[in-house]
Amino acid sequence: MNQFLNHRLEKDLIGEMYIPEQFYFGIQTQRALQNFDLSHNKLSQYPLFIQSLAWVKLACAKANLQLGHLSQEKYTAIEYACQQIIEGRYHDQFELDMLQGGAGTSTNMNMNEVLANIALEYMGHQKGQYQYLHPNNDVNMAQSTNDVYPTAIKMALVLMIDQLEKPFQNLINGFAAKAKQFEHVLKMGRTQLQDAVPMTLGQEFLAFSNTLAKDLKLIKNLVPQSLYQVNLGGTAIGTGLNASKAYQEIAVAELATLIQRPIQSADDLIEATSDMGEFVLLSGLLKRTATKLSKIANDLRLLSSGPRTGFGEIQLEARQAGSSIMPGKVNPVIPEALNISCFEVIANDLAVTLAADAGQLQLNAMEPLIAFKLFESIDILNNAMRMFQEKCVVSIQANTAHCQHLVENSIGIVTALNPYLGYENTTRLAQTAFRENRSVIELIRSEGLMTQQQIEEILSIQNMTQPV
Amino acid sequence: MNQFLNHRLEKDLIGEMYIPEQFYFGIQTQRALQNFDLSHNKLSQYPLFIQSLAWVKLACAKANLQLGHLSQEKYTAIEYACQQIIEGRYHDQFELDMLQGGAGTSTNMNMNEVLANIALEYMGHQKGQYQYLHPNNDVNMAQSTNDVYPTAIKMALVLMIDQLEKPFQNLINGFAAKAKQFEHVLKMGRTQLQDAVPMTLGQEFLAFSNTLAKDLKLIKNLVPQSLYQVNLGGTAIGTGLNASKAYQEIAVAELATLIQRPIQSADDLIEATSDMGEFVLLSGLLKRTATKLSKIANDLRLLSSGPRTGFGEIQLEARQAGSSIMPGKVNPVIPEALNISCFEVIANDLAVTLAADAGQLQLNAMEPLIAFKLFESIDILNNAMRMFQEKCVVSIQANTAHCQHLVENSIGIVTALNPYLGYENTTRLAQTAFRENRSVIELIRSEGLMTQQQIEEILSIQNMTQPV
Amino acid sequence: MNQFLNHRLEKDLIGEMYIPEQFYFGIQTQRALQNFDLSHNKLSQYPLFIQSLAWVKLACAKANLQLGHLSQEKYTAIEYACQQIIEGRYHDQFELDMLQGGAGTSTNMNMNEVLANIALEYMGHQKGQYQYLHPNNDVNMAQSTNDVYPTAIKMALVLMIDQLEKPFQNLINGFAAKAKQFEHVLKMGRTQLQDAVPMTLGQEFLAFSNTLAKDLKLIKNLVPQSLYQVNLGGTAIGTGLNASKAYQEIAVAELATLIQRPIQSADDLIEATSDMGEFVLLSGLLKRTATKLSKIANDLRLLSSGPRTGFGEIQLEARQAGSSIMPGKVNPVIPEALNISCFEVIANDLAVTLAADAGQLQLNAMEPLIAFKLFESIDILNNAMRMFQEKCVVSIQANTAHCQHLVENSIGIVTALNPYLGYENTTRLAQTAFRENRSVIELIRSEGLMTQQQIEEILSIQNMTQPV
Amino acid sequence: MNQFLNHRLEKDLIGEMYIPEQFYFGIQTQRALQNFDLSHNKLSQYPLFIQSLAWVKLACAKANLQLGHLSQEKYTAIEYACQQIIEGRYHDQFELDMLQGGAGTSTNMNMNEVLANIALEYMGHQKGQYQYLHPNNDVNMAQSTNDVYPTAIKMALVLMIDQLEKPFQNLINGFAAKAKQFEHVLKMGRTQLQDAVPMTLGQEFLAFSNTLAKDLKLIKNLVPQSLYQVNLGGTAIGTGLNASKAYQEIAVAELATLIQRPIQSADDLIEATSDMGEFVLLSGLLKRTATKLSKIANDLRLLSSGPRTGFGEIQLEARQAGSSIMPGKVNPVIPEALNISCFEVIANDLAVTLAADAGQLQLNAMEPLIAFKLFESIDILNNAMRMFQEKCVVSIQANTAHCQHLVENSIGIVTALNPYLGYENTTRLAQTAFRENRSVIELIRSEGLMTQQQIEEILSIQNMTQPV
Repeated sequence: MNQFLNHRLEKDLIGEMYIPEQFYFGIQTQRALQNFDLSHNKLSQYPLFIQSLAWVKLACAKANLQLGHLSQEKYTAIEYACQQIIEGRYHDQFELDMLQGGAGTSTNMNMNEVLANIALEYMGHQKGQYQYLHPNNDVNMAQSTNDVYPTAIKMALVLMIDQLEKPFQNLINGFAAKAKQFEHVLKMGRTQLQDAVPMTLGQEFLAFSNTLAKDLKLIKNLVPQSLYQVNLGGTAIGTGLNASKAYQEIAVAELATLIQRPIQSADDLIEATSDMGEFVLLSGLLKRTATKLSKIANDLRLLSSGPRTGFGEIQLEARQAGSSIMPGKVNPVIPEALNISCFEVIANDLAVTLAADAGQLQLNAMEPLIAFKLFESIDILNNAMRMFQEKCVVSIQANTAHCQHLVENSIGIVTALNPYLGYENTTRLAQTAFRENRSVIELIRSEGLMTQQQIEEILSIQNMTQPV
Repeated sequence: MNQFLNHRLEKDLIGEMYIPEQFYFGIQTQRALQNFDLSHNKLSQYPLFIQSLAWVKLACAKANLQLGHLSQEKYTAIEYACQQIIEGRYHDQFELDMLQGGAGTSTNMNMNEVLANIALEYMGHQKGQYQYLHPNNDVNMAQSTNDVYPTAIKMALVLMIDQLEKPFQNLINGFAAKAKQFEHVLKMGRTQLQDAVPMTLGQEFLAFSNTLAKDLKLIKNLVPQSLYQVNLGGTAIGTGLNASKAYQEIAVAELATLIQRPIQSADDLIEATSDMGEFVLLSGLLKRTATKLSKIANDLRLLSSGPRTGFGEIQLEARQAGSSIMPGKVNPVIPEALNISCFEVIANDLAVTLAADAGQLQLNAMEPLIAFKLFESIDILNNAMRMFQEKCVVSIQANTAHCQHLVENSIGIVTALNPYLGYENTTRLAQTAFRENRSVIELIRSEGLMTQQQIEEILSIQNMTQPV
Repeated sequence: MNQFLNHRLEKDLIGEMYIPEQFYFGIQTQRALQNFDLSHNKLSQYPLFIQSLAWVKLACAKANLQLGHLSQEKYTAIEYACQQIIEGRYHDQFELDMLQGGAGTSTNMNMNEVLANIALEYMGHQKGQYQYLHPNNDVNMAQSTNDVYPTAIKMALVLMIDQLEKPFQNLINGFAAKAKQFEHVLKMGRTQLQDAVPMTLGQEFLAFSNTLAKDLKLIKNLVPQSLYQVNLGGTAIGTGLNASKAYQEIAVAELATLIQRPIQSADDLIEATSDMGEFVLLSGLLKRTATKLSKIANDLRLLSSGPRTGFGEIQLEARQAGSSIMPGKVNPVIPEALNISCFEVIANDLAVTLAADAGQLQLNAMEPLIAFKLFESIDILNNAMRMFQEKCVVSIQANTAHCQHLVENSIGIVTALNPYLGYENTTRLAQTAFRENRSVIELIRSEGLMTQQQIEEILSIQNMTQPV
Repeated sequence: MNQFLNHRLEKDLIGEMYIPEQFYFGIQTQRALQNFDLSHNKLSQYPLFIQSLAWVKLACAKANLQLGHLSQEKYTAIEYACQQIIEGRYHDQFELDMLQGGAGTSTNMNMNEVLANIALEYMGHQKGQYQYLHPNNDVNMAQSTNDVYPTAIKMALVLMIDQLEKPFQNLINGFAAKAKQFEHVLKMGRTQLQDAVPMTLGQEFLAFSNTLAKDLKLIKNLVPQSLYQVNLGGTAIGTGLNASKAYQEIAVAELATLIQRPIQSADDLIEATSDMGEFVLLSGLLKRTATKLSKIANDLRLLSSGPRTGFGEIQLEARQAGSSIMPGKVNPVIPEALNISCFEVIANDLAVTLAADAGQLQLNAMEPLIAFKLFESIDILNNAMRMFQEKCVVSIQANTAHCQHLVENSIGIVTALNPYLGYENTTRLAQTAFRENRSVIELIRSEGLMTQQQIEEILSIQNMTQPV
């Protein structure tokens, strides 16, 4: 290797290092790449985070320009560089491991270096000629990882939650459409896995729709309260050392304009710098949604169990062959994949909790894990909800006749006859039906307790599934 | 044992059983007591829950009276019985294990039986003479465990969160008071456990106060949204079978009046009957508070580490002797107990999550665990916050001189000199100070870089701890 | 209150305090009682732990006697006191909260004080006359909480695991007996909740027995390796300061004799003093058992679902009425209570993990939580396994005819016909059966593909449920 | 797109699909790729798992050959194909998501298809000409995903644990070497973050070495017991339907030979097919190691806190610049990255637990998540331990003078003077030293209580850090 032809020499407080010419990142990123090789998950997996960090950098540069700390020439170059990142270019320069020490410093430095070198080329210089524009002094001016990094995480989460909304709403709508389709399918409700009283399959699916709708509403309600407050301008520990009050106000206002959200300064920047509570909250909300989705997946797997020896009330579309040994076997692979995705989200919430709990004094050094696990959870939920709606929910079919048969054959319908035949009669009927393995309706008929018309009226879907 | 003198005979669908005369509960409670003997935790530990269940029963009785389904005589007796429970009597009749199967049926039956027997005695009858007033037919009229039980859990949580507010607010105020007391104590801020830049001890404590205040506000904001929607009147699975629309409306309205909160019917009673999302949310909020409290406890233990070989910035009041072997040793037992309490709350959140995930179809059979763990977490946080404020926070003292000495001796203060001496000078000073084990200020003086007046001005608390 | 009549005055490094005369504990316990009032769980819930601590104290006293550090008179009194505790007396003197700070110091002091006062009375003195026998100087001689406390926890765990063995083995035997009873009940196996291939109900229950047997074997195998190594004699941090090598050897040997186990000194007492790994391991093993039990409970609830609209392969004995609204409803309350118990054990494992992770430097201050959660988990498993066997497993009945019917009616049995009719034929049969809602056997008969004798032979239990 | 030139048409029970010619996988893999697009983690991340699955396939083919079920020609082609995979080729054909439904069927099919097409080309045919060699009939002969997949997971875990051993042992050795290097560095031990009694830094580091050595030993002891028992030959549910006893024995024996381990058939194949206990155990062991590593990382961060305002007993080598704002700041990024890695492993254990708990009846459909999380945890621990040793532990330096100074200046050393000066004297000395902010030794000297020689002898490293 001829280091002098294809490499440039960079320096930091540790020493010197040759950086291959093609890389826009510099020595600090290179050190971090060498230090942290822990997982298969890289920064570039989360383009919205990379873009958010560029937005934050641009907002800071605008503030520095307005306050006269950054020349127009440097600003123009930095703005150009930020736009490149925002438009999705150069993301291959962000290959740091999501599992990293340093509280995000490496990620911030990665961005500072890439922006500086794009800007340098834009200015007509070569990469590494930091005397013309410096990653720290210029790009990172008046900033600290400790305010820039969590601010960018929050912006990325806002945007990712935005993207989550569509598959989330589609799934809600998907269940609502099925509820409409199944509104006349009478079936037995079950509590504690035991036969209870009748309901419609439409009611069951409407509950799925409604319970998810509550979650989406909650998330949309809490995200602004929780993520729009940033500590930008607080610098190292929130005291704002070496950053003026004016800078702080302009930077936050510019970020709000860029990101088109009413971003504000947190009330207490010291608190906001070390506290991970907003992330714990969001993770908890995602976990709540995960437990609901997992429960729904379990229900669909139960309701479609069979085809002959299970509940068999609904049928899921076959997505792939289920077995090589057992001809014709089809398995509920989509709900299973949803379960698994939900377990991942629930476990991620523990990782976030552990990281939040490990914060010390003025900073939480475990913030990179928190960011990683939140990004991953939203990503997985996004994919899983889309998969669930498109590959499963939309094509669910009811086994209407079987559902109807189970209701007619059930003992639980005696509950509806209580007001007409009295508790003693119904209890006796229930016991006889169970002991003699007969249907309750058949018993009523054979005893002549009610006319066929009465039976039909009382056991109408309307009467059994709604309060009168 | 002469069963005929001191016992009464009760029956249920399983068979007959003798119940000792002194017990107000009946056969169904007795069976549950025999079935579930799993933990050391009993229903009577949570009087607000017992009271809430009585309030729900009273609301239902009022509805049944108004609709003409319950006679005035029976109503009066049931009302009397409910009042007894609400006023705190007969709670020793609720000795069921908090770990119980049956989705709360045993707890509901326990209440039905105790109320019935109190009412019977009030009417001049004897316990067990259910022909005059029946636990199921009268006390439980138009109700199902599946609507009554979760409604009572929600009411209990509302009341317990109310009680939590006071110690929570006291702790917030306690930290705010300390922040005021320590507002002039200059100290080093630390990030990643390494010396960073100066701040005041007051700022540090104010952040503790503010971060907890955000949680209390969030809980108070979300609890009404989350817990005021009940499924009362939904009966077995939310379809309201055997309960009229009118009953549902009156019962909820009466409950709202009794509990003095704007309680409402949930929009979808089927969803509300099986969904545990509100409990998962609340548990997540408690966990968030627990991670914050645990972090604060860790910080206090770090800041008070020593007395000679640690950080030694603050001093916690001695609460008990720390060691028999080491004379004079005192340990931070109160923050440690807080840590442990918080771990319990975090682990309880997992139990709630597991239970929520295990719900199936129209009901979650694991609801008793959810109720138990939420009650326990609130109880523990209540006790732990009171302990923390009264036995630790209130009496914390600053080691002001030591804090000041650490700042003056630190290298991190060169950051504040950056704008005056330039980055090159400060970097050189920092390196020299570290290498020669000297103080930065001493170096400045010996090199004559600044006057004493300049040094004092720049390194004033005001200048170093606030943005200019 | 006349303090001088009914109280005695005690002193510690914090100051003085009046202790009611009837209490055998002293000032240090009293302070801890006031400091920690966090949960409903008290030391006295775990008598084996109190006894274990007394055994450790007795072993140390024996060592001190042999080394000439403790007089015969004092030793005799201490031995008497220890015997009282070991025999179960005075346990009401141990009312400290299981949630406590101080790394166990309060618990150790509670024991030192109670032993001292029992011993003083035995010697003819009055409680509190510590000049004759001192809680620290004599009872705690050459000991530190940091070696005595974890040693006692380990001994208690050894004994509690011993007690767990019986209900554990009974449950294993219970399932094995059922396996024998059900060995000729043919039923469909299910994978992913879809019909798979036949098996016997006996095989299903034998797997329950075997999987639990593996766990009991593993626990019995690992407990000695893991818990028999103690740090007794290491004193404060494992360096053994103020305790001689001879003392250490004698104390451990005496403990081994008392507890009748080959207890040994850990190889590295410093490591053994701060490490919580053995507890994390045990907790993980209990969690493994909990996940298995929870899965079995889920299976039993699934298999007994119905009576009319579920799987209905087995029937659980009715333990209590399931509903007031739905006549005749019976729920699987015992498996549900088992599920809930298992969730608690799983969540306790998280608490143990959090506490273990929070250890710092030479000690883990969170040890009391670890002890509490392990004791609780073993206790709950003990109770839950006994409940499960006695109130559920023993009385499970097979719905043999229904199982048989499901197999005959299933499509999955075509798998067994593969080698005889060929893959193409069986696939066609499977598809026709499903499409036309007919049984596979009926199709074979109607097509004359096999004789009745052939069908019976191939579809014999023997042929379908064992490799040939 | 001209599908007829560059694609081949494949069929399954769902229908037909065009597969691009270059792909060795077929229609079932293609469907799974379309069904599951959930995470950034792919099968190919875990080459040892892909290789293990090929070994299992090869073992089965050998059994089928020996039993005369597979022709020599087909066997030779399958063997060739397996060897290609084992040697690391074609791994880019395994791009399935690690988050997948179907209990591993897709993964098994992916392997069946790739092997078939490699084999077909080897035989001179074209990809997709399954009439000559069929993915299911030939490659998957006598197999089910349900026995092949968990067997391959176990083999992969055995090999991955093997690979883990080296960095694990290196780290153990690394700490042992440091223990030797620091054996004469006297320092204060701390309990509950408060000054306790002296020890050597060597003792502290030896405990790190020993505690990890216990874990490696435990893992190596348990892995064979736990992972060498396989359910190969059990086919769909463990009953071995369509696989002979002879096949089962040969296949397992061949696998043992190939993998060079004493692999055996599990005693109860039905139990072994559905039980996840071995994975829960392994995950628990990894979690135990993670909690230890995390605690060590915390300790190193504490001990190296400073440089001026912390404990400052050791110095970690600078790995990267810590801050752009604070000149000269260096952070403990390697221990931080270790903490984060450990949190991930702890959270993964929860995912494994959730998945294990979700198993139903004869199979656990969540097995893919269990495999994924175990592979990920071992991978991360492998990388993290290597990073920790090479980039941190090996270059730790002691601040010997500062350690010595802290000991001399401490109050805790009075504990060692107890036997010489008596408890009263030492208590008085301790209190005076603390109150007057003086050193204990200085006080002894000024009071003439001991000669300089006596002081030096008693306070020798030897005397203070070992039992006498």
